[in-house]
Amino acid sequence: MKKHISTILLAIFFVLSAIAHYAGFPPVLQFIFSAIAVILVAGFLGRATESVAHYAGQRLGGFLNATFGNAAELIIAIMLLREGLYDMVKASLTGSIIGNLLLVLGLSIFAGGVKHKVQNFNVALANMNGSLMIVAVIALFVPALFLNTHSITHPQANTLSLIVAGILILAYIAWLIFSMVTHKNYLGDVKTVSVGGDVHGAVAVDNAERPAVAASTASASGMDATMTGAPPSSVHANVAETHEEEEPAWTKGRSILYLLIATVMTAFVSEWLVGTLETFTSSFGFSELFVGAFVVAIIGNAAEHSAAILLAMKNKIGASVEIAVGSSLQIALFVAPVLVFVSFFLGNTMDIVFTTLELVAIMVSVFIAKSIIQDGSTNWYEGLLLIVVYIILGVSFYMV
Amino acid sequence: MKKHISTILLAIFFVLSAIAHYAGFPPVLQFIFSAIAVILVAGFLGRATESVAHYAGQRLGGFLNATFGNAAELIIAIMLLREGLYDMVKASLTGSIIGNLLLVLGLSIFAGGVKHKVQNFNVALANMNGSLMIVAVIALFVPALFLNTHSITHPQANTLSLIVAGILILAYIAWLIFSMVTHKNYLGDVKTVSVGGDVHGAVAVDNAERPAVAASTASASGMDATMTGAPPSSVHANVAETHEEEEPAWTKGRSILYLLIATVMTAFVSEWLVGTLETFTSSFGFSELFVGAFVVAIIGNAAEHSAAILLAMKNKIGASVEIAVGSSLQIALFVAPVLVFVSFFLGNTMDIVFTTLELVAIMVSVFIAKSIIQDGSTNWYEGLLLIVVYIILGVSFYMV
Amino acid sequence: MKKHISTILLAIFFVLSAIAHYAGFPPVLQFIFSAIAVILVAGFLGRATESVAHYAGQRLGGFLNATFGNAAELIIAIMLLREGLYDMVKASLTGSIIGNLLLVLGLSIFAGGVKHKVQNFNVALANMNGSLMIVAVIALFVPALFLNTHSITHPQANTLSLIVAGILILAYIAWLIFSMVTHKNYLGDVKTVSVGGDVHGAVAVDNAERPAVAASTASASGMDATMTGAPPSSVHANVAETHEEEEPAWTKGRSILYLLIATVMTAFVSEWLVGTLETFTSSFGFSELFVGAFVVAIIGNAAEHSAAILLAMKNKIGASVEIAVGSSLQIALFVAPVLVFVSFFLGNTMDIVFTTLELVAIMVSVFIAKSIIQDGSTNWYEGLLLIVVYIILGVSFYMV
Repeated sequence: MKKHISTILLAIFFVLSAIAHYAGFPPVLQFIFSAIAVILVAGFLGRATESVAHYAGQRLGGFLNATFGNAAELIIAIMLLREGLYDMVKASLTGSIIGNLLLVLGLSIFAGGVKHKVQNFNVALANMNGSLMIVAVIALFVPALFLNTHSITHPQANTLSLIVAGILILAYIAWLIFSMVTHKNYLGDVKTVSVGGDVHGAVAVDNAERPAVAASTASASGMDATMTGAPPSSVHANVAETHEEEEPAWTKGRSILYLLIATVMTAFVSEWLVGTLETFTSSFGFSELFVGAFVVAIIGNAAEHSAAILLAMKNKIGASVEIAVGSSLQIALFVAPVLVFVSFFLGNTMDIVFTTLELVAIMVSVFIAKSIIQDGSTNWYEGLLLIVVYIILGVSFYMV
Repeated sequence: MKKHISTILLAIFFVLSAIAHYAGFPPVLQFIFSAIAVILVAGFLGRATESVAHYAGQRLGGFLNATFGNAAELIIAIMLLREGLYDMVKASLTGSIIGNLLLVLGLSIFAGGVKHKVQNFNVALANMNGSLMIVAVIALFVPALFLNTHSITHPQANTLSLIVAGILILAYIAWLIFSMVTHKNYLGDVKTVSVGGDVHGAVAVDNAERPAVAASTASASGMDATMTGAPPSSVHANVAETHEEEEPAWTKGRSILYLLIATVMTAFVSEWLVGTLETFTSSFGFSELFVGAFVVAIIGNAAEHSAAILLAMKNKIGASVEIAVGSSLQIALFVAPVLVFVSFFLGNTMDIVFTTLELVAIMVSVFIAKSIIQDGSTNWYEGLLLIVVYIILGVSFYMV
Repeated sequence: MKKHISTILLAIFFVLSAIAHYAGFPPVLQFIFSAIAVILVAGFLGRATESVAHYAGQRLGGFLNATFGNAAELIIAIMLLREGLYDMVKASLTGSIIGNLLLVLGLSIFAGGVKHKVQNFNVALANMNGSLMIVAVIALFVPALFLNTHSITHPQANTLSLIVAGILILAYIAWLIFSMVTHKNYLGDVKTVSVGGDVHGAVAVDNAERPAVAASTASASGMDATMTGAPPSSVHANVAETHEEEEPAWTKGRSILYLLIATVMTAFVSEWLVGTLETFTSSFGFSELFVGAFVVAIIGNAAEHSAAILLAMKNKIGASVEIAVGSSLQIALFVAPVLVFVSFFLGNTMDIVFTTLELVAIMVSVFIAKSIIQDGSTNWYEGLLLIVVYIILGVSFYMV
């Protein structure tokens, strides 16, 4: 019944935004309809991804969610590029990165932590993610530093941006090869085992070849030998139990179809939303920076929000982390570089030089997120800390 | 006999400072008497806290020591506020933070490390402290950045300071709820176990529900299963042994009484000390920054010094870390915000914008302290590193 | 046969550079001959060190390699000092630090990771190295900050540099005492154990007193109790196997002799190389910064390169990390301070104030290297990330 209502609402607002856009309704109305439509479509995208993830495993599922979620981000950004709104693009990219690392991750960890005292996920993966975040920050920071110290000129900064963009895309593709092919099991899903009502650690679901994981989560009860050395059958039995809990609503084929439909719908409502931004900015007196970094980013990331929080509450924190952190990394290491190339082909290269405020916002987000995930273990207070940092940044950007 | 001498000295210098203050003795004499009195009272405060901690457990004991120690800091700061010496307040807060993170922690780790080869403490707690330190740095850094880049005005910086101060106080209260209530055991005391004369790791004293701790300290000898799975009786036996070693001098009631008396005495000698600072600064030609950040801070933190170092040498490094790091966090997340509100109610809001030198000093202290405690294990060289950083900062600030 | 060819080439180019230098050949030719000679001598130095390391153990061997390798660096720098080329000295020191932390370490981890899926080394050592790196960055950053904010004058910066240099040398000597004497076993070599073709973790070779190591590498298979509790005989058997694999070519005495000869040869070819640098810079239009930080550093570090990469591929990643990271630390904490004192005695103190670009390059190198080694476990992608950062810095410096 609930699902039918949301489907109907989705259809209604999708059509309303379409009409508002093409019939030229008042801008504020257009914004409201589009914003709601984007959020509803995002929820649809979230449910479709969750369904696909059910068949594909936590990590691949999280990756798909992040990727299709970022499809919306990429489309919005290309449209902003075509209109020459380069600063809004960078503000929006910044907003996506910090929104994912702080708000999505924070709400997920908080929600999951309130339900489950301690949640664990693969530490090796957390460490790799942490290092990737640092490389992303370095790649964004160094060109900006060289330009702002007048060590290089603007044309040189454009060239440097293209080179760095190329390097980042190659590094991201290599990451996919590493995480999906050569070290797939090393970073595999980790199942949190409860014994006697208390969380006792995590046992690798796929493979015993995971020193870092086992070490960081070995139970204090002396039972880890039993758990990690458990014969495959009992482990699979555990995983099977989890599957039995879920009762997926859609078949595999239908899930993939809905995922594609949801992505296409996202593209359209994003275009309608962008068209209203300029009016929104002047009507409410917000700065372009705040609108890009917070308003656009929150609306555009609603997909990650819904899926990640739901998964965390279902004790699948590994997927939530993959969605939030994976999405940030994808924005920094893939979407931003791709946009640099797109702008180049459109004839006016957008450099990779963010403003000082944007860079600092990204840096502090990376520092706190890395600090929180690097032990492969989360609780409600860590989620609260991430949200606190997001609020501090939000209030500061609001005042600009 | 030794205790009687120190009590007599304490009484003497307390009275001397009182007389020097109210009778208007030469300022240098006032300073000397007050400084010695502050240090002696701090020692008294330290012994009283240690005694209370004996009944309340390492963590709660360390928390009480930090809190009552910071009471002196808070009182000194409010008096400086009333005299409008805002810059000295911030220098003093900076000095407290870096003094605790580098000098107190460093001396404790060094002293303990010389006696005991490797000392361990709860890693989950170390990680949470590390994340809290990062949030504190972010909360102090972001408003300063926005003001110094002229992105916001001074009135806006004041508003932002009040908002951030409110957020930090709420975050600190939430931390108390997390660490004292919901996850009390998760962050509980850890007892370092010696086997065959070598340190073999740490076993949780309170509860087996501690994946991160067990993992980071699992012994290499394969004995952890035995130790962590030990029936409660043997664990309690171990703790009981420790208690038997100590032979507390005061009863629980007397300890609490002495704690309160010591705090009141601290308030008085602090007021007398502050009254001499201006003369001290001009007499010796020090900069206000150096006096606030090093002289005031060292004298004011003498309480933490004595207790933390003694506890480390008694192989209770967890308490030392709690005192030093907990005190820094309390200054950054509670005392500083409270002072912002106090200044607001006094009619002239003090913003939360520290100078560049102060911010960098805090940041480097956080980085090195976090790096050293995050593995939950310490040795004498790590203590030395902290002291080295403190000396480098001290010499640099001295030259300003 | 292969060794004879390389010995002959070495002799040929050594003589050629000598002739080119003293007979006054065209500068470009001098540069080419000297550069090739430096690289060949470095290879010789590498083989000699590897041979000595075979007798002295991984860590001591790595330390010797780093020290003798840095001898070349120190000699080049003193010659640059005598010619008053202070900026080139700092650029060269920067280049050594980032070259070791990014290029040497990156190539080693990459090469080793391609052959061996996951490689492990002593985590306690990795953590200590990480903290030392942070102290090095702080020691270089604080004086520069105080000078650049005009908080201190240039003469004061010179004094501060001498004081900081003295502190660093003492800290480095204390590190040698800590790592070679008091906690030798705590940081001892770790042997990666393969079970069933998969890497299952690392077992301490020397001593069971290593909580951090065991914890971070405890196998997930439940076999760690067996492995770490293994009777000494089986462990020694394992080590003996490794020794049998190697079949050292030279005796202990001959290895040490060759090591000394190689060092003396390095001194000479370095002097000849430096003489050509000024022409090289103007001929090719490179900036002094790029030449110092990348060209000189790469050529001068060729010794570390060859040895470290070979050792990583032989699954002795602990030695590679010791060479690369140990070398960086030695440059920052010993060589740079010594140069400050040498310049003082030559009559014109070189301060320890690096340029903003150099400081940032060192900082980002430390951040990413620390992030990658701190879990005591490496794979090919982490090596790639280090190389990526090096390329980004290289391209940026090239454009200056």
